[in-house]
Amino acid sequence: MDWLWQDGRLRPVQEAWIDPADRGLLLGDGLFETMRASGGKVPLLHLHAARLAASAGELGIPLPYDLAELDRAARDVLARAGLADGAVRLTLTRGAGPRGLLPPEPCRPMLLLRALPMAGAAPAPANAATAAIPRNERSPLSRMKTLGCLDQILCLRAALAAGANEAILLNTQGDLACATSANLFLVKDGTFRTPDLASGVLPGITRGRLLAALPVEERPLRRDELLAADEAFLTNCLIGVRPLLSLDGQPIGTGQPGPATVRAARLLEAA
Amino acid sequence: MDWLWQDGRLRPVQEAWIDPADRGLLLGDGLFETMRASGGKVPLLHLHAARLAASAGELGIPLPYDLAELDRAARDVLARAGLADGAVRLTLTRGAGPRGLLPPEPCRPMLLLRALPMAGAAPAPANAATAAIPRNERSPLSRMKTLGCLDQILCLRAALAAGANEAILLNTQGDLACATSANLFLVKDGTFRTPDLASGVLPGITRGRLLAALPVEERPLRRDELLAADEAFLTNCLIGVRPLLSLDGQPIGTGQPGPATVRAARLLEAA
Repeated sequence: MDWLWQDGRLRPVQEAWIDPADRGLLLGDGLFETMRASGGKVPLLHLHAARLAASAGELGIPLPYDLAELDRAARDVLARAGLADGAVRLTLTRGAGPRGLLPPEPCRPMLLLRALPMAGAAPAPANAATAAIPRNERSPLSRMKTLGCLDQILCLRAALAAGANEAILLNTQGDLACATSANLFLVKDGTFRTPDLASGVLPGITRGRLLAALPVEERPLRRDELLAADEAFLTNCLIGVRPLLSLDGQPIGTGQPGPATVRAARLLEAA
Repeated sequence: MDWLWQDGRLRPVQEAWIDPADRGLLLGDGLFETMRASGGKVPLLHLHAARLAASAGELGIPLPYDLAELDRAARDVLARAGLADGAVRLTLTRGAGPRGLLPPEPCRPMLLLRALPMAGAAPAPANAATAAIPRNERSPLSRMKTLGCLDQILCLRAALAAGANEAILLNTQGDLACATSANLFLVKDGTFRTPDLASGVLPGITRGRLLAALPVEERPLRRDELLAADEAFLTNCLIGVRPLLSLDGQPIGTGQPGPATVRAARLLEAA
């Protein structure tokens, strides 16, 4: 049987009840985290919880559980699912509300955790297409993991239709932002570079770990710099480091995973 | 008891079941329509259904019901709610899916209709603030009624915090777009003007009715043109025409509803 954790209780999925007036469902009014689980827990939960709390605070959504409670919830939902390793998806919504955009005051947020197995093998290296839809770096939402993912869905579908397996999004200034659900790094002459947050990127957990462990230039980057890079890779919590081998059919560097990419991946594994 | 219509059946709200893996809830992967009801039905349902079908087609979400079935659903849900007049909110999601952005193939969309009473009086005339978050006219989503409304929620909250009661959004070029859930018209020297769709605005049903009934210039418009207008108003299906009296504390025209605004409102009522 499939279980989830909802608002403090483990329940079989069939007994979960999502209010049809939930603003997460009706208006995308909420946030999520997708977290790597291992050893029956989420080792980096404190980082996810801190990011969630920061975004929720900015949106005015109270986060009704503390870190210890979230840790308990993640362990419980993993144990019930019989998963030591895998992923935990956390979904926080502002809860139910009356018609209209304005949130009710006070609101009663809804929190959902679900354990999911990891897809078998690591994903293939990325061969990406540049997305036609720019990321709106002038919205604070570009730096949050909100429930509104339709732009990314459209970008990924378009990339697949173009024969690529990932999309690279530029922001409205034409600067590099990120992939559809991963941060972007490039390596040039031995230096790691990644778009700064103001470029409209999520403060990714894996991105943050690499920034702490390596000297990385964090600044606006142009698409040409990616094409001229020696290596490039994508990061997120589930995949770790994924080599990015080409953009729009043009190889990046040798078109093969390079030594700096391997070094970044090993750093994460060792931590 | 509160009822809704879900996937072909009327049910009490407590018996509705939203799959916790529904992509509408988890990823904002869906669309909605908010429709005016009168006489126990939705008179303009054909217009809403056509817009919904066009957007769903662009997103690759099958719409599993035809116009006659949607009409039956709207009538049934209004009758069960004991409402002759009011609103019907329709929500279409791509349905449940596995983890990740990529939609399952095939998907099983979820459709939800709910009847809601109208808020008592018509809303007060708008006194708006210019939003800090631009509307991304380069995303096709700016012309669809998607479930991802968080930018608009933030804009409306910020407007209220600034002492206004509505926000006017500019697009990334600085051109006028729309209000948080309404189209924008201005009147200058007897001419109606409204931002064109390429400015990043929803093809509103009421907007479309006015375009059909009146000579309207549809083109990119600057904020200065709004401030220099003789009159301005907002339109959507529920409010019809709502006078816009000021922007950022500066009165538009006389700062009172003008004759062209009244004329537009009467046109809609007579149709």
